[in-house]
Amino acid sequence: MYKYQTAIRLHLTDAAGVVYFANLFVLAHECYESFLDQERSLASIIEQKEFIIPIVHAEADYRMPLKLSEKIVIEMALGKTANTSFELSFKFINESSELAAEVKTTHVVLQQSTRKPAKIPQFLKTSLSVL
Amino acid sequence: MYKYQTAIRLHLTDAAGVVYFANLFVLAHECYESFLDQERSLASIIEQKEFIIPIVHAEADYRMPLKLSEKIVIEMALGKTANTSFELSFKFINESSELAAEVKTTHVVLQQSTRKPAKIPQFLKTSLSVL
Amino acid sequence: MYKYQTAIRLHLTDAAGVVYFANLFVLAHECYESFLDQERSLASIIEQKEFIIPIVHAEADYRMPLKLSEKIVIEMALGKTANTSFELSFKFINESSELAAEVKTTHVVLQQSTRKPAKIPQFLKTSLSVL
Amino acid sequence: MYKYQTAIRLHLTDAAGVVYFANLFVLAHECYESFLDQERSLASIIEQKEFIIPIVHAEADYRMPLKLSEKIVIEMALGKTANTSFELSFKFINESSELAAEVKTTHVVLQQSTRKPAKIPQFLKTSLSVL
Repeated sequence: MYKYQTAIRLHLTDAAGVVYFANLFVLAHECYESFLDQERSLASIIEQKEFIIPIVHAEADYRMPLKLSEKIVIEMALGKTANTSFELSFKFINESSELAAEVKTTHVVLQQSTRKPAKIPQFLKTSLSVL
Repeated sequence: MYKYQTAIRLHLTDAAGVVYFANLFVLAHECYESFLDQERSLASIIEQKEFIIPIVHAEADYRMPLKLSEKIVIEMALGKTANTSFELSFKFINESSELAAEVKTTHVVLQQSTRKPAKIPQFLKTSLSVL
Repeated sequence: MYKYQTAIRLHLTDAAGVVYFANLFVLAHECYESFLDQERSLASIIEQKEFIIPIVHAEADYRMPLKLSEKIVIEMALGKTANTSFELSFKFINESSELAAEVKTTHVVLQQSTRKPAKIPQFLKTSLSVL
Repeated sequence: MYKYQTAIRLHLTDAAGVVYFANLFVLAHECYESFLDQERSLASIIEQKEFIIPIVHAEADYRMPLKLSEKIVIEMALGKTANTSFELSFKFINESSELAAEVKTTHVVLQQSTRKPAKIPQFLKTSLSVL
């Protein structure tokens, strides 16, 4: 599991007073990028032009609204993995230690040149294995 | 079905060169708000303070990337409906008339004062019925 | 002058109940992109890789808050132009026909290969001249 | 001076490959909110309903593009202050310790009930004085 601490900033909220639903995906991806930074940043992966790792599916379940200025923790874990794809799940824990929301994303690895599925690169496999 | 035409603007894209995955949810919600405007705007629903209609689940399947400046059509349809909730599905049709992505959102109606499930208000039921 | 009609959608607002200040810049740029689409889209300019037109300065004056679901008009006009740069000004007219905000952006033209200032390309000069 | 460390995440970038211009304002405001958190969070200020502190002017000068995954430091300082308003300036220092951009914001204090200018509240005056 990878833990990412952050706070709900104003631009993430909307006129209903809480986090805008799509912004949970933004926060989940921030967590994923922070995780990648430990080994090889998303920028370096994109710059290498060997493979791309697009998200092919994303989903979220909302249980409780997250509020402005709230300190939260996102817990990222590895879901199903296959040769050429992997799933990540994100639990959003609010300031009262409650599970406020869950996000899941499915990532596939594609060779950049051919856009065909490719094996998860070794460095990423290693990183994911410690989750 | 409700059709919403829009274009992919720069702020929706990311350094990978195409629409950032979470922004499909933003576009879907824009379509939903445009649909609501025909009868009663989202602002007027929020201001009335009778009920709130939070999204409790959202998901997206990405088939093809959407590109900067691309003109797209979003087709919104009604999915499963119950007494106190309804589902919307959004098909993203790209400039080549291909299905580039699909989004689904589940909305529940809550009484604002009690936060308990409430029946879909009549005006909304009527609006949704023509989808 | 170029007029762009749009509506304030939920993701543009924040927990203070009105448009988040930075999103006026987003709306102004949407207007600019819509203007460019008439002749040559921003995507085609970027893809051509001849020159880039970064924003080097941006500013906004806020007079009145813009509200969720409000229909607005953005009026874009040309400001000071030089050989290698131009200014755009955007007036935000709210639903009551009041001037709610103003945005200004300064754009410089750079040759993509050298990153040195370059003359405003002819197609853009022509487009801007009708503003 | 208040220092805020952050990283350029994917959603802040655009198809031109670097940070979307309007997102510098978002990052500056994140820094401001983080600063406020030390004493009284933005949420608690909004909830108190005594006064609001809208931004009436914002501007940015862009010198160098900020790149995906880049670690940056934002240095916030106090600019001109008056009885009922204050200015904040933000310097964006990139990974090579260069000044990549500057943002300025002007904030006015209004009594929430009357929307008339009000003195900067004491807690905020104290906080700002240490900048």
